[in-house]
Amino acid sequence: MDDVMVRPVGIVRGPRTEPVDDFWGGEIAAIELDSSQFGPDALVGLVEFSHLEVLFHLHQVDPTQIQTGADHPRGRIEWPKVGIFARRSKARPNRLALSRCRLLRVDGLALTVEGLDAIDGTPILDIKPYLIEFGPRGEVRQPQWATEMMRYYYADRDG
Amino acid sequence: MDDVMVRPVGIVRGPRTEPVDDFWGGEIAAIELDSSQFGPDALVGLVEFSHLEVLFHLHQVDPTQIQTGADHPRGRIEWPKVGIFARRSKARPNRLALSRCRLLRVDGLALTVEGLDAIDGTPILDIKPYLIEFGPRGEVRQPQWATEMMRYYYADRDG
Repeated sequence: MDDVMVRPVGIVRGPRTEPVDDFWGGEIAAIELDSSQFGPDALVGLVEFSHLEVLFHLHQVDPTQIQTGADHPRGRIEWPKVGIFARRSKARPNRLALSRCRLLRVDGLALTVEGLDAIDGTPILDIKPYLIEFGPRGEVRQPQWATEMMRYYYADRDG
Repeated sequence: MDDVMVRPVGIVRGPRTEPVDDFWGGEIAAIELDSSQFGPDALVGLVEFSHLEVLFHLHQVDPTQIQTGADHPRGRIEWPKVGIFARRSKARPNRLALSRCRLLRVDGLALTVEGLDAIDGTPILDIKPYLIEFGPRGEVRQPQWATEMMRYYYADRDG
């Protein structure tokens, strides 16, 4: 299989400059599309969707630190060692991140979003509308450590 | 921003060889990790999760056909023209796809999954566990055309 060359479609402009793990809930940021590739027609109709799925590049992760095996999530020894594909660690092959956020506004090439867990300057690789039917089908099950880990992830910092 | 080089981490092995839009519900496929990059430790603990999020490359889309503006989803003129980032069309910048599927089994470097909307030979770019808390927060809203479009997407072909 060939390598795949990916060209960022936009960039994050936001208040947070350090990659920290929690309290993304109330964070407001902008995604600015690359005007050399896109016009406002790329975003027509997007505002009809309440949520987006955003793919982005974890550009601040040192490629030499990428993990491929098993380790404790967040280094917490009270949680079990799990493989790189069983956790959402940033130091992962290809450094690709994916998360959902709320779309607040579209103005020209700029999107205003809430709860996007990406820092200022993050390259955006794709934006997709979130469709209800693309959610997980059937009952969702996850281990206890994952539930504990997420406790404050989307909490609002201001309570 | 620099281009990003992405190396496939695995490949889809499945019964479907043609990209068709609907009836992915009952489809069973395998994801085989690349043994030159990973050992079974990469998947430790994954089976505790019922669902995965899978990023893959739409390698059969001709790059010259990629769209950047507004058009009717699936070419259906009864649905409004919407921008490339307001639909999930395959002919999109970077040809990156993302979907959720059910994890049935892990055997060594092979995952057996249900409902992955990717054809045989598709390069896999990342595998993440689906965490409930990473789902959309707050009420989800989408336009009527999207609901209509998804009607048979995850239906079971056999009824």
